[in-house]
Amino acid sequence: MRNDSLLVTDLYQLTMVQSYLDHGLTHSASFELFVRKLPEHRNFLVFSGLESLLKYLEQLRLDATELDWLRKTGRFSDTLLDYLETLRFDGHVDAMREGTVFFPDEPVVRITASLPLAQLIETRLINLLHFQTLIASKAARVRLAAGDRQLVDFGLRRSHGAEAGLLAARASYLAGFDATSNVQAGFAYGIPIVGTMAHSYILAHERESEAFVHYAHSHPAGVVLLIDTYDTEAAASKVVELAPRLASEGIRIQAVRLDSGDLGAHARKVRGILDRGGLHQVRIFASGNLDECRIKSLLDEGAPIDGFGVGTRMNTSSDAPYLDCAYKLQEYDGRARRKLSEHKATWPGRKQVYRHYRDGMIERDIITTLDDTRSTGEPLLQPVMRDGRRLHALPDLDAARAYARQQLQALPVALRQPDMVEEGRPVVEVSQALQNLAKAVDREIRLRMAS
Amino acid sequence: MRNDSLLVTDLYQLTMVQSYLDHGLTHSASFELFVRKLPEHRNFLVFSGLESLLKYLEQLRLDATELDWLRKTGRFSDTLLDYLETLRFDGHVDAMREGTVFFPDEPVVRITASLPLAQLIETRLINLLHFQTLIASKAARVRLAAGDRQLVDFGLRRSHGAEAGLLAARASYLAGFDATSNVQAGFAYGIPIVGTMAHSYILAHERESEAFVHYAHSHPAGVVLLIDTYDTEAAASKVVELAPRLASEGIRIQAVRLDSGDLGAHARKVRGILDRGGLHQVRIFASGNLDECRIKSLLDEGAPIDGFGVGTRMNTSSDAPYLDCAYKLQEYDGRARRKLSEHKATWPGRKQVYRHYRDGMIERDIITTLDDTRSTGEPLLQPVMRDGRRLHALPDLDAARAYARQQLQALPVALRQPDMVEEGRPVVEVSQALQNLAKAVDREIRLRMAS
Repeated sequence: MRNDSLLVTDLYQLTMVQSYLDHGLTHSASFELFVRKLPEHRNFLVFSGLESLLKYLEQLRLDATELDWLRKTGRFSDTLLDYLETLRFDGHVDAMREGTVFFPDEPVVRITASLPLAQLIETRLINLLHFQTLIASKAARVRLAAGDRQLVDFGLRRSHGAEAGLLAARASYLAGFDATSNVQAGFAYGIPIVGTMAHSYILAHERESEAFVHYAHSHPAGVVLLIDTYDTEAAASKVVELAPRLASEGIRIQAVRLDSGDLGAHARKVRGILDRGGLHQVRIFASGNLDECRIKSLLDEGAPIDGFGVGTRMNTSSDAPYLDCAYKLQEYDGRARRKLSEHKATWPGRKQVYRHYRDGMIERDIITTLDDTRSTGEPLLQPVMRDGRRLHALPDLDAARAYARQQLQALPVALRQPDMVEEGRPVVEVSQALQNLAKAVDREIRLRMAS
Repeated sequence: MRNDSLLVTDLYQLTMVQSYLDHGLTHSASFELFVRKLPEHRNFLVFSGLESLLKYLEQLRLDATELDWLRKTGRFSDTLLDYLETLRFDGHVDAMREGTVFFPDEPVVRITASLPLAQLIETRLINLLHFQTLIASKAARVRLAAGDRQLVDFGLRRSHGAEAGLLAARASYLAGFDATSNVQAGFAYGIPIVGTMAHSYILAHERESEAFVHYAHSHPAGVVLLIDTYDTEAAASKVVELAPRLASEGIRIQAVRLDSGDLGAHARKVRGILDRGGLHQVRIFASGNLDECRIKSLLDEGAPIDGFGVGTRMNTSSDAPYLDCAYKLQEYDGRARRKLSEHKATWPGRKQVYRHYRDGMIERDIITTLDDTRSTGEPLLQPVMRDGRRLHALPDLDAARAYARQQLQALPVALRQPDMVEEGRPVVEVSQALQNLAKAVDREIRLRMAS
């Protein structure tokens, strides 16, 4: 199955488009994606996924088999099927840069296209941007907790499918991870890949030290030994015993990995054993049920750990596995729109976000109408696609990663800790122009409701 | 990117395989997948994903581009690259049937193959089975809460990628959902697809009632109207007004959908309005932040809701977005293996699970060694693949779904509620034979550790 298939959509997109075509609702529409509110434990979000969205839009088409299947369901009119057969994305995209720190109610992407087209892409657009933003936001927290220690994405196996693993590897790298265990992410995005051995490798050998020597001979350039299969400290002593023999063959042991038990206590003991054995340069790498809170607490207690493998809890954003986001119609045929549904009302019209910094720190964001000429600051939404064509190449992944790093450096200090804070947050302000527009739209809605 | 690519793996699988090949560790190995412990709020799990695993194994190969990329990384030996180039899965698979209810420590799948091959498939095997089992287990809880009301998967947009959406649609259908909004799941698996309109559809029209009429004309066979965009009860009255006009054109309104506010209170008011308007046959369908707990509470309070769209919280299994599962080497070259790492020791050797029923209810499971001739009961693990070939076609999706339904009917009543229970659980017992094997393996490990 193609991940970027047009069939990766909710059926209602197709039924709505059929009705739009039937009734001539094909004028220009603008939709915006935004997050309604932060999940618990989140102080900020990091935008990610734009590159994959543009790729999706550029290749948007049905293949013959898919079209044929749609026809055979007997659900759809010829009008719709003909429309889908020749469909290409020829709309506009405005978006924040990947790696931008953002807050609730701020639009991160605006799509402007004919109503049927802008509607049709909703499901996959959310599917791509929601997940990557979710993971980049989680991974940024892990990066803030880990300081400059090595961070490796280990989460593929418990990711929700292969695409989730691939996109999570990219989003976490964007947000500051150094590498991933996911080989496909190396192939697809050039992300550095890392990995050595599992417990099964040790278990398959008759003796642990034999497993270590075999590995060192097969991979002399990257010897990282997993030492917790039987007895962690005993294994550390074996490493000390083996080191001179391997050194005589020109092989240097780079690191040992701990994957179970009290990681802090083991790390201290192992550090002592390695140091007494003269192996000061051998680093200690830890993994196993880690997240930003656990890493912070290990480092707070002074655990001598040089790098972390972070898996499931990062790749599934396990404490907050989704965001309350929405892709809403903001303007149709030149007129601003807004929904009144209880607890779900949104700011109407096409919008811009202006950012203000003080001493290099994010101080204030202003959400306002696109045509507001009074507001000032750095406009966060920029044109990236016009009439279905990119205006320019997006920054490559390493450039986006560098930008995300700058953004995290501009994050107010209060927001960098794992706990949610109220004080020290940047002000996110809705401009008078936008408040006026919302009132005008509501008046119009009440008039229409009365009719 | 191919979801079933051999590159969807952790790098350490490749580095381990290279070392196995270098040192002649290519004898027969058996690995088993099991869940270590239930997440909070779970009383049982439902096995899902076997069909996708077999398909993955049947097509296991590297394409030329992928192989070329691996070669160019400069990380791998010719021995490994030659091995990967001609690799095919020629091992054995034993597994529970999809839809089987199971408990911690029970192996759900056993792979027996040469050590490098059985190792190499680990990451994708877990990636496929973990996620589908996670979702089937969550969806089964939703089914138990909803009784026989209609249940539709609405979760694609906030699924973790496209593959997650597709696999979640299948896993939830397997566990008792009736349909999905995911069009690709209809294409791929023949699952019934459902969907009508979003708020944007209403907002694009000047008047709500015009939107309703347009929709009815475009989709006369499936009129489900979303009534919460402006004022839910006012919209219900409009539905009552429109019904005779549509009826005169031969169009019947099937249902209305509520998506916000207090769903129970709105449903009661809307039911009253519809009934007073003579629309007794128009059903009420509800969606919006639903899960098994919310559905149970709505039904407990008597909300007149006929069907539910369940999205994000089911598709991400949001209260427990991962399972603590492991794929462990149980036997290599004829000898049972086990890891001693703290808190992570597992039962060694190749195993079988025997199930006992009483009055049609699951009463007791026995986990034992594969060669135990004393234990009795229904053996849950069955051979499905030998030497890389299926022994028979698996039951199709509807048959698997019927089996899951039977399994849920055999679930002890205490385990059917959303809360976790201690009393009334089936006994899961480890046989004396398996306990003896574990002791023997531990003795052997200690002898080896001393050496």
